[in-house]
Amino acid sequence: MSLNVTDRGRLNRFLEHLEESARVELGYPVAFDIDYKPLEPFLGYSLNNVGDPFASGHYRLNSHAFEREVLEFFAEMTQAPDGQWWGYVTNGGTEGNLYGMYLARELFPDGIVYFSRDSHYSVSKNLHFLGMRNIMIRSQPNGEMDYEDLRETVRIRRDATPIIFANIGTTMKEGRDDIGIIQGVLDELVMDKRYIHSDAALCGGYAAFLEPRPAWDFADGADSISISGHKFFASPIPCGIVLAKRGHVDRISHSVAYIGTRDTTISGSRNGFTPMVLWYAIRSLGVDGLRRRLHNAMAVADYAEREFRAAGIEAHRNRAALTVVFPRPAQAVCEKWQLAAAGDIAHIICMPHVTRAQVDALLQDILSERGRAAPGDPK
Amino acid sequence: MSLNVTDRGRLNRFLEHLEESARVELGYPVAFDIDYKPLEPFLGYSLNNVGDPFASGHYRLNSHAFEREVLEFFAEMTQAPDGQWWGYVTNGGTEGNLYGMYLARELFPDGIVYFSRDSHYSVSKNLHFLGMRNIMIRSQPNGEMDYEDLRETVRIRRDATPIIFANIGTTMKEGRDDIGIIQGVLDELVMDKRYIHSDAALCGGYAAFLEPRPAWDFADGADSISISGHKFFASPIPCGIVLAKRGHVDRISHSVAYIGTRDTTISGSRNGFTPMVLWYAIRSLGVDGLRRRLHNAMAVADYAEREFRAAGIEAHRNRAALTVVFPRPAQAVCEKWQLAAAGDIAHIICMPHVTRAQVDALLQDILSERGRAAPGDPK
Repeated sequence: MSLNVTDRGRLNRFLEHLEESARVELGYPVAFDIDYKPLEPFLGYSLNNVGDPFASGHYRLNSHAFEREVLEFFAEMTQAPDGQWWGYVTNGGTEGNLYGMYLARELFPDGIVYFSRDSHYSVSKNLHFLGMRNIMIRSQPNGEMDYEDLRETVRIRRDATPIIFANIGTTMKEGRDDIGIIQGVLDELVMDKRYIHSDAALCGGYAAFLEPRPAWDFADGADSISISGHKFFASPIPCGIVLAKRGHVDRISHSVAYIGTRDTTISGSRNGFTPMVLWYAIRSLGVDGLRRRLHNAMAVADYAEREFRAAGIEAHRNRAALTVVFPRPAQAVCEKWQLAAAGDIAHIICMPHVTRAQVDALLQDILSERGRAAPGDPK
Repeated sequence: MSLNVTDRGRLNRFLEHLEESARVELGYPVAFDIDYKPLEPFLGYSLNNVGDPFASGHYRLNSHAFEREVLEFFAEMTQAPDGQWWGYVTNGGTEGNLYGMYLARELFPDGIVYFSRDSHYSVSKNLHFLGMRNIMIRSQPNGEMDYEDLRETVRIRRDATPIIFANIGTTMKEGRDDIGIIQGVLDELVMDKRYIHSDAALCGGYAAFLEPRPAWDFADGADSISISGHKFFASPIPCGIVLAKRGHVDRISHSVAYIGTRDTTISGSRNGFTPMVLWYAIRSLGVDGLRRRLHNAMAVADYAEREFRAAGIEAHRNRAALTVVFPRPAQAVCEKWQLAAAGDIAHIICMPHVTRAQVDALLQDILSERGRAAPGDPK
């Protein structure tokens, strides 16, 4: 078996296309700077991590041991209660969010989910999927939840357990909901029963390295946390980590025990390669390397914001964010640089592969397109 | 950044462990015979197929074009109505089953799901997840649904739309529910509204090549079909294909449109590497190669059944099945050969990598362990 000449040609052209595309990618929360080549041999085996990473089955081609080390690393990063957490490597942030909301639903069937307007569209989709009551809360201009709106909305529904879906890094502006403030709102309303899920898809990769540390993890009051592996950790294959308080998972595993399994993971067969990828990133960079990598990226974001402003473009970003928001440029620029745009804004995300030279080139393109527009044009 | 000596050693030892484990794997529906090495360069890019494979976004590092070709291939294999189908490459059979059940729930919120006792445990878990009413139906000894029990159970619930979860290859016995017979049962009860999902995780890879062709696909009445990519197609990373009638998907995409998206996929970021894997298998083997590969595997299954029986072991299998069922051997044998066992039976699945020599060696081990048991021992 082998490909014919035409198909081999297609693969080669596709590789060239990817090479070119990767050079002008500034808009999405992906990273290209970690070389995972040493893991290629593992693609030769059908690794399958089906089931609970802490349990064992007869199928030996799994990377559960590596997966557990990855989970332990993230348990530390998220200040999970010692020995009182559980988790697994997912297929991406969405699966982790689904898992968190599933836990919340099983614990509080009467609950109402509150999430901000700046949440990713998949949040509404997930809640519809799970059949959960939900209310969208207003956002502040920086993308963070409007805590006053949250307070007023929960205040008139004190008979229903609040389930807060907190964004630790919104899609467009990298706004971070403050779990500390959210806890304060619920305390004030004496809502003792509550559930807080932290969707840290993007920022979960580095929030632990920020100073001051944002209020986003288990120590701040999260009940479950979802983090993406293909964002800050540059996994070439989408993946993620979900962690939750062990007691919550135990309660739901009882509730599914009548169907004859204690396996609460959402996927059946699970990717055994991506835990190797995360393990490799953690072991080869280490905490210091990851921290340095963040600081370099942050310096580029800082540079981008300054340069844009110096050129007369209204760029802004949240404190210690990798995302720089600015007025939506011409369509040709958005397409060339693969910029995500929403309404009249666009952004770049200064992930670790983004260079100052790329920022300069983008800025040049924006300015040229502006110059090309007839004087007096509205934009 | 690089790994230290200890960690490099661990990776090497893990590779050796996988090499050894792969040599004695006969129990799970995985296959090791396709070499996907030529695709390794694509791991160097963060391929992400987020969203609908038939729509396009700004992120250009995707393999949507390959994914569409894969889907077209499967649409043909499953006799999908011309131009009236939709689908995507999933993270595995479970996601495809979830998707099918989700469609069914949106179309028939009053529906009851019927599935046989021999269904995989994930089916109950999925239905609990989606909050769908469901009833387990008895199985026949060969693992196929007991159609009489189905008839009697549906007969007294004619006010609820029946949603049939059909297994095209059960986990333990490769029993195949006959969608033709199921249709007959529902016709007889004049249940015109109905939904049939075909869980063809294992057999969907080759059912189209069997003669006579089982009643399992769109032409037989399926509304949606889920097929695994890491089983017959030997993908080293779990994946799958879900296909559904276009009209169903359009109706649910309307129902989620109020949340501002027409993206009905369950995952957010989607694996862009696995569509390349499936494309590679299809293009390099072709229909003839896939058919030949099946026939070779079937001949090994045939051989295994005969040899076991000749040695006095009560082996049996369903017609044209790769799965050979026999009395559960000693625990040491199950562990060595990674055999899935349930109650007093075990099985091997003669996937394309399984050789006659492996079957002989397993048989030898079973017989030796029997000889080792004291004479007069119950087993």
